[in-house]
Amino acid sequence: MARNTQVPADHNPPPVTRTLAEFVANHPSRGWSDAVDHEAHRTFFNWLGCGIGAAHHEAADAALRALAVMQPAPQATVLGRKERIDISGAALVNGITSHTFDFDDTHLKTIIHPAGPVASALLALAEVTGASGRAVIDSLVLGIDVACRVGNAMYPDHYDRGWHITGSTGMLGAAAACSRLMGLNADQTQMALGIAASTPVGLREQFGTMTKPFHPGAAARSGLFAALLAREGFTASKRALEAPRGFMQVASTKCDWNEITDELGSRFEISFNTYKPFACGIVIHPAIDACAQLRAEFAKSGVKADDVERIEIAVHSLVLELTGKKEPKDGLEAKFSVYHGCAAGLLFGQAGEGEFDDALVTSDAVVNIRRKVVATVDPTIDEAEVRAVAIMKDGMRKEVHVEHAIGSLQRPLTDADLERKFSSLAAPVLGQAALAPLIAAALGLSAAADVHQLVRLSVPAH
Amino acid sequence: MARNTQVPADHNPPPVTRTLAEFVANHPSRGWSDAVDHEAHRTFFNWLGCGIGAAHHEAADAALRALAVMQPAPQATVLGRKERIDISGAALVNGITSHTFDFDDTHLKTIIHPAGPVASALLALAEVTGASGRAVIDSLVLGIDVACRVGNAMYPDHYDRGWHITGSTGMLGAAAACSRLMGLNADQTQMALGIAASTPVGLREQFGTMTKPFHPGAAARSGLFAALLAREGFTASKRALEAPRGFMQVASTKCDWNEITDELGSRFEISFNTYKPFACGIVIHPAIDACAQLRAEFAKSGVKADDVERIEIAVHSLVLELTGKKEPKDGLEAKFSVYHGCAAGLLFGQAGEGEFDDALVTSDAVVNIRRKVVATVDPTIDEAEVRAVAIMKDGMRKEVHVEHAIGSLQRPLTDADLERKFSSLAAPVLGQAALAPLIAAALGLSAAADVHQLVRLSVPAH
Repeated sequence: MARNTQVPADHNPPPVTRTLAEFVANHPSRGWSDAVDHEAHRTFFNWLGCGIGAAHHEAADAALRALAVMQPAPQATVLGRKERIDISGAALVNGITSHTFDFDDTHLKTIIHPAGPVASALLALAEVTGASGRAVIDSLVLGIDVACRVGNAMYPDHYDRGWHITGSTGMLGAAAACSRLMGLNADQTQMALGIAASTPVGLREQFGTMTKPFHPGAAARSGLFAALLAREGFTASKRALEAPRGFMQVASTKCDWNEITDELGSRFEISFNTYKPFACGIVIHPAIDACAQLRAEFAKSGVKADDVERIEIAVHSLVLELTGKKEPKDGLEAKFSVYHGCAAGLLFGQAGEGEFDDALVTSDAVVNIRRKVVATVDPTIDEAEVRAVAIMKDGMRKEVHVEHAIGSLQRPLTDADLERKFSSLAAPVLGQAALAPLIAAALGLSAAADVHQLVRLSVPAH
Repeated sequence: MARNTQVPADHNPPPVTRTLAEFVANHPSRGWSDAVDHEAHRTFFNWLGCGIGAAHHEAADAALRALAVMQPAPQATVLGRKERIDISGAALVNGITSHTFDFDDTHLKTIIHPAGPVASALLALAEVTGASGRAVIDSLVLGIDVACRVGNAMYPDHYDRGWHITGSTGMLGAAAACSRLMGLNADQTQMALGIAASTPVGLREQFGTMTKPFHPGAAARSGLFAALLAREGFTASKRALEAPRGFMQVASTKCDWNEITDELGSRFEISFNTYKPFACGIVIHPAIDACAQLRAEFAKSGVKADDVERIEIAVHSLVLELTGKKEPKDGLEAKFSVYHGCAAGLLFGQAGEGEFDDALVTSDAVVNIRRKVVATVDPTIDEAEVRAVAIMKDGMRKEVHVEHAIGSLQRPLTDADLERKFSSLAAPVLGQAALAPLIAAALGLSAAADVHQLVRLSVPAH
């Protein structure tokens, strides 16, 4: 089956590999607003919680057993675990765990989860180089800018083609970030981006398997190694991103070069990063949010879950297309059930990883509420929107209208929300008592002399 | 600059990931002809010489310094060197050196250099598992079959798009070979191929830089790790090659599934592997061959180089387009000079890496002969062909017509030719005295209980 396309190449692209390399090497430390710097800390903090939360997932166990064959040196921390492995392996495993629950950050314009590849490479490297917290945050901002700008230039064509864009731009973000952290000059950074361009990671076909979270991990490892090679004088094409046979034209028919260069150094893509409040696909978030708001109303007026006769929700057609499963049998299926999402919102006011526990999903209390949810497609309702009405046994009605769910750019999680999310992820792994100093260390990272206290607090004490 | 293509996906592809996995896991040991088994030994032997020959190239030095940051365990041999590093690093570095001189093997139908990714992963793994020589050769045949069959299915579109097909099919070959060597079953092998499908390596834009030989090395490492992950239960899509958003449809518009399944288990792609006799682009090979034949004629009739007035060669237009450099300044430029190639053939009867030495390229003897070469494009001459006429000062003429150069499928290198090539590469690194037992070990690999003697002989004794 031969299919035909011949896309004319752009033979005169601007030198974006060089432009990005100079930017990464030369942009001043903290050369951005307080808001951007704060968002970088939030991005790092959210990544850290996700990584710790999934520390004992079977994907992490399998990856660590595979790495053990190489007898890795005990150089760097595996989040939430006692094993220490080499920095390349730590970048890989922390990248895997940070994306395992699909609960990490999202650059909405490209659907890139930017922290996984970038922060995972950075923290491992910083642990052996002794880099300052300030340098880590600087490198995080710049690395994420590189990945998301390349993503902006190629999205949506690159993603539509089937690339999992988190891994297929993440190696560039990680290479940029590690180059910056090691103080490489623009020429070396250009080589690091060039080497990394030859190792894109990730296919959408892998969604639903362990290889999906493998993508940010493998991208972190590739980018880190590209920077190490570049430091040692390894060479690559100077136009590896933009040339007719460079990465971007090979992997995307859309290559909007302006997305890379416009407002470079004044607009930072990390500003547009968002954090999931609920551990499931973003399309159910408005419904969960609406039901959590109903729960809060009920609490004020003394209504009990048992008093509810029916919950009617009016949703966009995509919601039922993607998440129309009425009777999910386990946690994984529940992530594709707007009915379960509504039940979690009503009963618990949240939908973290714990609310997708297999036993909870099939418990009587949850099943009972879930069956009261009636979902209807309403063509006047937007994807980001939901209308929910609770009808009580006594005929009383409560209505909630969500235009943008909590966690969207319009209604970002507050720092307190992020702390609650972090705690729900980290407490089962590290214990509640360990959390306060770790939260302080993460949110104050840029003031730390190095990352050693942070990583010490990120693993179980006993 | 947005460019438009929407290629309709093939939503009903055959299950080639499964088919290949079953083949790799279940095909009997030595389930092929003596000729195929002998070709596998030749492929391994040629790869070994190339790797040893480039052991001290600056690309290898840089890669080893970058790897040293990870403090690798001394598990496996780096060809031609005393350092021992972990198996993942050894797979990488041996993959790099085997392709550094661009002197390795070529599967002509796809321009894949198949041994680099596959043999580099296998030898490193065999060193720690204690696998038999027989198992290594079996795995080499099967791994190369996987890489080249996937290549056949996607070539030429995949290559035209800009992928360096050696690295972007090599990770599959390495994953298949390592799965076989570890005795993974078909389900596990299917997962290994699936994981590897997410990590293709290589852009043609990198040609002329160290990142070109990095491609087979990185593919070797990716494939090896994919097999290790699969053994530990790591999961991937079962249709990672063929699905609409699987690797092949993402990376190629041509996906000829029959190329994967036709005569599977009876036709082996390693049969079509060739070995370069000269360390330069294949387009000059007929001219070098012709001049080497003239040299042999001269020797018989007592003619000296000084007696030659002029060498006229009639060539295909591509020869002057790609290699028309008249006065190369160094070895790298000389690889793109048909004039230098002819001089090397006439003076030395060969054009190994030594004949592209910088000092030799600009020596009086070489320059003197080079300037006597007159090349003319002849539209009746095929790409594989050359006519060369030597005109002596006394007016005498000698003519040679080469229809297919030495090293082509029509005129394969003999085992003796391969031994000469091997010696020219390995002698400067290991010393002449070390070669005989190593040659015997490589060409007799399938009879060895393990690879330990072979790898011991592949590094300097002192």
